[in-house]
Amino acid sequence: MGADTRMKGRNGTRTADVMSAVRAKVAGRALGAGDRLPSIRSLAATMDVSPSTVVEAYDRLAAEGLIRARRGSGFYVSPMAAPPLALAEVEPRRDREVDPFWVSRQSLDADAAVLKPGCGWLPADWMPEAGLRRAVRALARADERLLTDYGSTRGALALRRLLITRLAEDAVEASVDQLMLTGSGTQATDLVCRFLLRPGDTVLVDDPCYFNFRALLRAHQARIVGVPTTPSGPDVAHFEQILGSERPRLYITNSALHNPTGATLSLATAHRLLTAAAGHDLTIIEDDIFGDFEPERSPRLAALDGLTRVIRIGSFSKTLSASVRCGYIAARADWIEHLVDLQVATSFGGPSPVAAEIIAKVLIGGSYRKHMDELRQRLTRTRRDVARKLQALGIEPWLMPRGGFFLWCRLADGLDATAVARAALEEDVVLAPGNVFSVSQSASHFMRFNVAQMSEPRMWDVLRRALKSAPGITGS
Amino acid sequence: MGADTRMKGRNGTRTADVMSAVRAKVAGRALGAGDRLPSIRSLAATMDVSPSTVVEAYDRLAAEGLIRARRGSGFYVSPMAAPPLALAEVEPRRDREVDPFWVSRQSLDADAAVLKPGCGWLPADWMPEAGLRRAVRALARADERLLTDYGSTRGALALRRLLITRLAEDAVEASVDQLMLTGSGTQATDLVCRFLLRPGDTVLVDDPCYFNFRALLRAHQARIVGVPTTPSGPDVAHFEQILGSERPRLYITNSALHNPTGATLSLATAHRLLTAAAGHDLTIIEDDIFGDFEPERSPRLAALDGLTRVIRIGSFSKTLSASVRCGYIAARADWIEHLVDLQVATSFGGPSPVAAEIIAKVLIGGSYRKHMDELRQRLTRTRRDVARKLQALGIEPWLMPRGGFFLWCRLADGLDATAVARAALEEDVVLAPGNVFSVSQSASHFMRFNVAQMSEPRMWDVLRRALKSAPGITGS
Repeated sequence: MGADTRMKGRNGTRTADVMSAVRAKVAGRALGAGDRLPSIRSLAATMDVSPSTVVEAYDRLAAEGLIRARRGSGFYVSPMAAPPLALAEVEPRRDREVDPFWVSRQSLDADAAVLKPGCGWLPADWMPEAGLRRAVRALARADERLLTDYGSTRGALALRRLLITRLAEDAVEASVDQLMLTGSGTQATDLVCRFLLRPGDTVLVDDPCYFNFRALLRAHQARIVGVPTTPSGPDVAHFEQILGSERPRLYITNSALHNPTGATLSLATAHRLLTAAAGHDLTIIEDDIFGDFEPERSPRLAALDGLTRVIRIGSFSKTLSASVRCGYIAARADWIEHLVDLQVATSFGGPSPVAAEIIAKVLIGGSYRKHMDELRQRLTRTRRDVARKLQALGIEPWLMPRGGFFLWCRLADGLDATAVARAALEEDVVLAPGNVFSVSQSASHFMRFNVAQMSEPRMWDVLRRALKSAPGITGS
Repeated sequence: MGADTRMKGRNGTRTADVMSAVRAKVAGRALGAGDRLPSIRSLAATMDVSPSTVVEAYDRLAAEGLIRARRGSGFYVSPMAAPPLALAEVEPRRDREVDPFWVSRQSLDADAAVLKPGCGWLPADWMPEAGLRRAVRALARADERLLTDYGSTRGALALRRLLITRLAEDAVEASVDQLMLTGSGTQATDLVCRFLLRPGDTVLVDDPCYFNFRALLRAHQARIVGVPTTPSGPDVAHFEQILGSERPRLYITNSALHNPTGATLSLATAHRLLTAAAGHDLTIIEDDIFGDFEPERSPRLAALDGLTRVIRIGSFSKTLSASVRCGYIAARADWIEHLVDLQVATSFGGPSPVAAEIIAKVLIGGSYRKHMDELRQRLTRTRRDVARKLQALGIEPWLMPRGGFFLWCRLADGLDATAVARAALEEDVVLAPGNVFSVSQSASHFMRFNVAQMSEPRMWDVLRRALKSAPGITGS
């Protein structure tokens, strides 16, 4: 029995209004478990109702268990009133397939028989296997302290020094106190979000963007706003306008080989973007996880800005190993100091010394550069071949990226990508429908393809059938 | 120039009151960057002041930069008004030495010459080195997918199955969907806190407790309340009283070989504690990180409760390797489902498959049980020897623990443990003064010693000198 049928007349409606207002505050976490509710007099004044209306509303909410009266001291939110942070329920789930967890959980938990052109990584046999095995064999002979002890709080110095050299190749100047290692690239982003954000803060992302940015920002209870992506980076006019109207605290982006579109930030866009950011005191996370796939280096925000308001993060999951977990943050030295405290508090110690040792060993060996050279060439051929095959099915790349393994494509005839993905999943093929990447849910007829995961003929058979079975959509 | 001198008379005081109230809301994060402030009329009613007083307060706060007026739509908190989360500044730092980060950062970042009787882990040569090297050598021959791919979101099934068998030895019944792997024991606790807590929630810890629980809870902006520890667990009468008066959302504890005291939870205390928890819908995290050091199994809250309101967490950092990072959570299946989403969002994928493989390999090999048997015997002898040597210096163990490597000791003559620790640090010896463990700061003359880190004669020389140089304290 809803509030509407239970309460009659104007006073009843007003009581329901007060109850809704309190419920919204608890659901939205403005009032937490144990918090004192406003006094009856003050809430009556604020909501322009009589004190007796508030009394009735509080009594009803107490009967429901949402709040509790404490003798002589007013009303409090019940200990269990505020639900745990169930991410998949934070937003309405109109469509299970466009949930940002859909692709990650389907592809991470898939068994070996499942094909994954929707996933965000290379097949195992495209990775630098020989170098990894050499590094692990060397690890078996390492000093016993390396095998057993906690590492230093910023992570292994040898790997940090190596990363500083690599940052310099991107024209990003950093000193050793401006860099720390983390458990992964995502953990790096998460740590920065914990440092800078609080619930309700507005965060700007690209539209479309890497779907896990959306999942991560939900975990921070951030308000997510999207800026449209163009082939040369975010739409700067939109960006400037949003900075004025939405006052975001943070912007998260990939400059080089943007995920999912493959866009590359131009120097002019980078300059305008940083000028606008300075005017609004905006902090930027530049996630450079795909940087090593570039044929030649493109502009980085961190290089122009000099790590003042730009925080550079990265990892080795895409080029070296996703099983050996390691990421990094390069930022202002004073921020790194606080981020180290935060990492000690929340994961004790720095990242795994064993992981840092394996990564450093592979990077130092000359075989890594050779591997990346070959990988880039192989991907150039594969992107071209797959694009041609997709075009034959009416699936058109939005642009031909300069590097990497993604093709962001528009489906023919306004086909609904979610319906296509659902049909393919029935046949054990995980696709990545456009709207998992889109804050505005405006990518209904887009799909991201991972060209390195599309060599199986069965995948193409399934895709063809899925395209035929899916309904078209009218309008945008 | 403070508000008091700037504003004269009754209206001035009221303006200052309104300004203070707004500042407190921003500092306490009840109002975040970009949030709209209450309307002038409603705040005037709530605070029982005239609208013109609120207007003046808002204008002054806008002049200070804390808030901004937006034409036609009221006042908003400025984007940069709320400072980043600098953990070391969340509480007043009256004394750098009693900061909960002091021990962790001093001991994690110490070079090899520094002696660390204050640290929380065993020396490298007490760890199962041979088993670890064997496991790493086997890893070098593993399937290439294991070396390169992301793992499943709950972590390697083989290790999860193994852990379920080990939980059963503690009489904790869990099914495979009730267990997930994490990046470390601390990350396990952090993940649960992210799921259950929000800023301002009250959390109960033991007093004294593991200092990083305090650091971790600061990162969650929790209100921390302590319950005194007795040799058989928390003081249950206090516990019941605090549940009624403080309504905590969560209690974090070690049941077996409590850190730092070495206390062991009795069956009677466990039963009363769970009965009280049920009456107040309290969730409990039982951190079992020292469980394998017990000579025989003591009661676990998770065993009595059956993982209903108790969440069991653990790791292998103390007995196997702190360099290979891996922890776990055992809890209600529906909570695990949400915790998996949260881990995907914040660290993408589960814990490192390479790490899980090394841990599983060592645990499966028969050598681990043999190693632990020998380690327990060695620690029993070492605890006895070190206790005798400490007693000769007037340092008295609070109790003789049944296992593990900690002795929680009272210094002679009311000596100030912080002063002793400061003097020892001058000579490159890291000690763990009592108050880093104490929420109430009532452990000024206690010290935690790690008996396994005290074999160097130099350590004892430094300790003797530090004791002589330190002033006594009067009173508690």
